[in-house]
Amino acid sequence: MAKYDSQLDHIFAALADPTRRAIIDRLSRGTATTSELAAPHDMALPTLLAHLAKLESAGLITSTKVGRVRTYARSDTAFVPVQDWLGHQSDLWTRRLDQLDTYAKQLAKERANET
Amino acid sequence: MAKYDSQLDHIFAALADPTRRAIIDRLSRGTATTSELAAPHDMALPTLLAHLAKLESAGLITSTKVGRVRTYARSDTAFVPVQDWLGHQSDLWTRRLDQLDTYAKQLAKERANET
Repeated sequence: MAKYDSQLDHIFAALADPTRRAIIDRLSRGTATTSELAAPHDMALPTLLAHLAKLESAGLITSTKVGRVRTYARSDTAFVPVQDWLGHQSDLWTRRLDQLDTYAKQLAKERANET
Repeated sequence: MAKYDSQLDHIFAALADPTRRAIIDRLSRGTATTSELAAPHDMALPTLLAHLAKLESAGLITSTKVGRVRTYARSDTAFVPVQDWLGHQSDLWTRRLDQLDTYAKQLAKERANET
């Protein structure tokens, strides 16, 4: 699972902050300009821009500038690496439960043969 | 979505490191002792223990000590908060696409009426 390893570092670090998750939440509802994104947050603009830069460098959001207005959008494929990783963990977990199940059945069979 | 907010901070921060994700990967396959977890990693024991502590405090893994041996397990519900959050983002995204679709159909209808 080294496929997305360095990308996952950036994505998970970017998501480990409530302001950045709130920005993602807002952009999941539609595109927004810098000032629209700033409106609900009580923070200095450079702080907000730093959050946006972190999200953008992780590939979670994209931005385009027209004139003096920069508009942000959530990346279509934002969560693909995370979903792949979670899916892999879920597969491993299911396989493990299946093995435990097989083992339990085998034990039960052996006990039944003993008696 | 403030439900899991502080927990999500810890979970995402815990997952933003390749060693910690490798530990989760190993524990998704089954329980392991401290030395079994240390074996594939070339790092000092205190460093490994710090990674394990971070995963445990995020609720991703649990541990039990019998005698001098501590055994780690992945938490059953490790990824529930993350999956809930991703599910919510996916719902918002789908709703947005549906709205765009409705809008596009409405535009097409208006144009058809104009001609």
